[in-house]
Amino acid sequence: MKKIALLGGTGSIGVQTIDVIKEHPEQFELYAFAFGSNIEQALPIIENLKPKFIVVKNHAIKDKLSNKMSYNASISYGVEAINEMVSLPEIDIVVNAVLGSVGLQPTLQAIRSGKSIAFANKETLVTAGHLVMKEANAHQVELLPVDSEHAAIHQSLKGEQRNEIKRILLTASGGSFRDKTRNELVGVTKQDALKHPNWSMGAKITIDSATMMNKGLEVIEAHWLFDVPYDKIEVIMHEESVIHSMVEYLDRSVMAQLGTPDMRIPIQYALTYPNRFPYQLSDSLDLAEIGTLHFREMSFERYPCLKMAYEAGRIGGSLPTVLNAANEEAVALFLDDQITFLEIEQLIELQLEKHETVKDPDLETIITIDEEIRRNVRRDVLKR
Amino acid sequence: MKKIALLGGTGSIGVQTIDVIKEHPEQFELYAFAFGSNIEQALPIIENLKPKFIVVKNHAIKDKLSNKMSYNASISYGVEAINEMVSLPEIDIVVNAVLGSVGLQPTLQAIRSGKSIAFANKETLVTAGHLVMKEANAHQVELLPVDSEHAAIHQSLKGEQRNEIKRILLTASGGSFRDKTRNELVGVTKQDALKHPNWSMGAKITIDSATMMNKGLEVIEAHWLFDVPYDKIEVIMHEESVIHSMVEYLDRSVMAQLGTPDMRIPIQYALTYPNRFPYQLSDSLDLAEIGTLHFREMSFERYPCLKMAYEAGRIGGSLPTVLNAANEEAVALFLDDQITFLEIEQLIELQLEKHETVKDPDLETIITIDEEIRRNVRRDVLKR
Repeated sequence: MKKIALLGGTGSIGVQTIDVIKEHPEQFELYAFAFGSNIEQALPIIENLKPKFIVVKNHAIKDKLSNKMSYNASISYGVEAINEMVSLPEIDIVVNAVLGSVGLQPTLQAIRSGKSIAFANKETLVTAGHLVMKEANAHQVELLPVDSEHAAIHQSLKGEQRNEIKRILLTASGGSFRDKTRNELVGVTKQDALKHPNWSMGAKITIDSATMMNKGLEVIEAHWLFDVPYDKIEVIMHEESVIHSMVEYLDRSVMAQLGTPDMRIPIQYALTYPNRFPYQLSDSLDLAEIGTLHFREMSFERYPCLKMAYEAGRIGGSLPTVLNAANEEAVALFLDDQITFLEIEQLIELQLEKHETVKDPDLETIITIDEEIRRNVRRDVLKR
Repeated sequence: MKKIALLGGTGSIGVQTIDVIKEHPEQFELYAFAFGSNIEQALPIIENLKPKFIVVKNHAIKDKLSNKMSYNASISYGVEAINEMVSLPEIDIVVNAVLGSVGLQPTLQAIRSGKSIAFANKETLVTAGHLVMKEANAHQVELLPVDSEHAAIHQSLKGEQRNEIKRILLTASGGSFRDKTRNELVGVTKQDALKHPNWSMGAKITIDSATMMNKGLEVIEAHWLFDVPYDKIEVIMHEESVIHSMVEYLDRSVMAQLGTPDMRIPIQYALTYPNRFPYQLSDSLDLAEIGTLHFREMSFERYPCLKMAYEAGRIGGSLPTVLNAANEEAVALFLDDQITFLEIEQLIELQLEKHETVKDPDLETIITIDEEIRRNVRRDVLKR
């Protein structure tokens, strides 16, 4: 029985993690559960799976929740409580499904506690990959990716030698605007942007998919997770999202993982690793029914966010922190109807241009820059 | 330095094996070389790579060859010499690129000598899979498949657990007549049948691809190589031959190996296993340039040879020996312009229907049945 701590329990990945846990009650126990403030979503999960340790956003949510609960559990709130939760000796695996760079400190804490981590929080690796991987190596903790792309790469590396990798090939569906030209992006709405053609995901990642920043973040995430230089990481358009990603080896053999677009499969993969359990929540991939898979070259002109991500990743230092913070803030402003779709990339570019890169930034520096960039983006928007 | 014994050195796989050996002169030595009678093809290889041990078909060929050679080597002929060759203590790996069930005895001999075997001789596993695998298990010898499909499966199984396999998915290009209906097969010529759309291969396997018997033999080969029941082996049409085969696991993850249709890649994979060496003889797979991959369901009505192979495999015993012997003989008759394309499957079906299956046949029984079936097929043709 694996005891699980789930961070970000009411988000898209969180809810799908609950589906997987419920499918295998003999294998998994939801021991600890952290969410922000969405009590309506959290309460049925809590009442069903009865986690012993619950962390919420603040005191008010804690009071509200405890009044509605039918059993006794430890309920606490705030960052310190999260750090305590991921360090609980009972916990076998931490699922980090937190959104954004706010997931950084719990990740570091979980690593230092030697926990396995199922990792859906790519922003943390983008903003501080060098710190996270240094700790992970020091504590011999493996980060098990929950992203479909990185889970595919992880599987394509099974039994292989890292020094025999020729390149990593990330596939990109193209997101909700893949068939639009740059000119046609003027005036697109939030509602249009939120319609992802293949995947059911949260709002932030769906917008990131439309700008292709999601793939940019994934490039940086792959660089850190698999210790592969940027020159060996490529992106290819593949609209059906059936091949989730690939690894080419020195002998030109390409290993790939394929599947239906169901995030619960990579979630289960991370939770059961190194084993695989039966999966009944969706059918087997039926390639004959799908019939055709399409591929085309990625265009950096069409998707400048991907280009910015490669550049920020290659320069490194504090620049990926800037990329991520500016993107998080810009996407939040877009989702709040304060800016247009094309302003997202403009706001990010502005911050990248102005920033003086700090080499090998420590945690404090990263947190400071992260906050500063978010303020800058908001100020830029207000000034217009 | 791996010392190689190559059997079937002037056939399609043999010649491509030579290409791979020449690419890595620091890694491979062609120590022993066996071929039939094609001196014209063999001599440049021999003069170039100077194998120390050569086996040919008969005394006449031996004399002819030794007169033309510029250096001293051991030259011998016949089955006993082949058995001696694969047992030489210097040999690290035997490449079995012999065509047909005649490869059975050298395979057994190589296994008993504890040699690694790069295995391109699928007929041997079809005709006597139970005997070959029993010996391989007893001597802890791994058969490294050289077929692109089985090499793909071998790679898709790396680092995985066999009891977590849900199914094996063999891909089939459809061969030279894939766009023809059954009715349109009446009157097709040998020349048409020999035009494989994707792969450069020998004549026998190209005809087997057109009848889909090749895929049937591969199903039986996969059953033996990977110890997977027939119910878990499926075939899917994939005309581009880019995905070389796949393995689905219990969690519905599908692992696949992809590549350009170049047999030298799986040959090199088998020779370098468990490592991978750089490969320069063809370019990397360019999915964006290929653009589209197509898949459709396999039809047993369109390809009765595949259906017969599944049935013979499932019944087992001596029936796969009958399937293979009848097929080898019928294809030889077709290539000799003595029968039509559609008569191939009719001749095989007749032998399968008439045969009384022997359970768990020993080597002698298999050899006897193999010879008897070949005689029967020739007699059936003469009687018409």
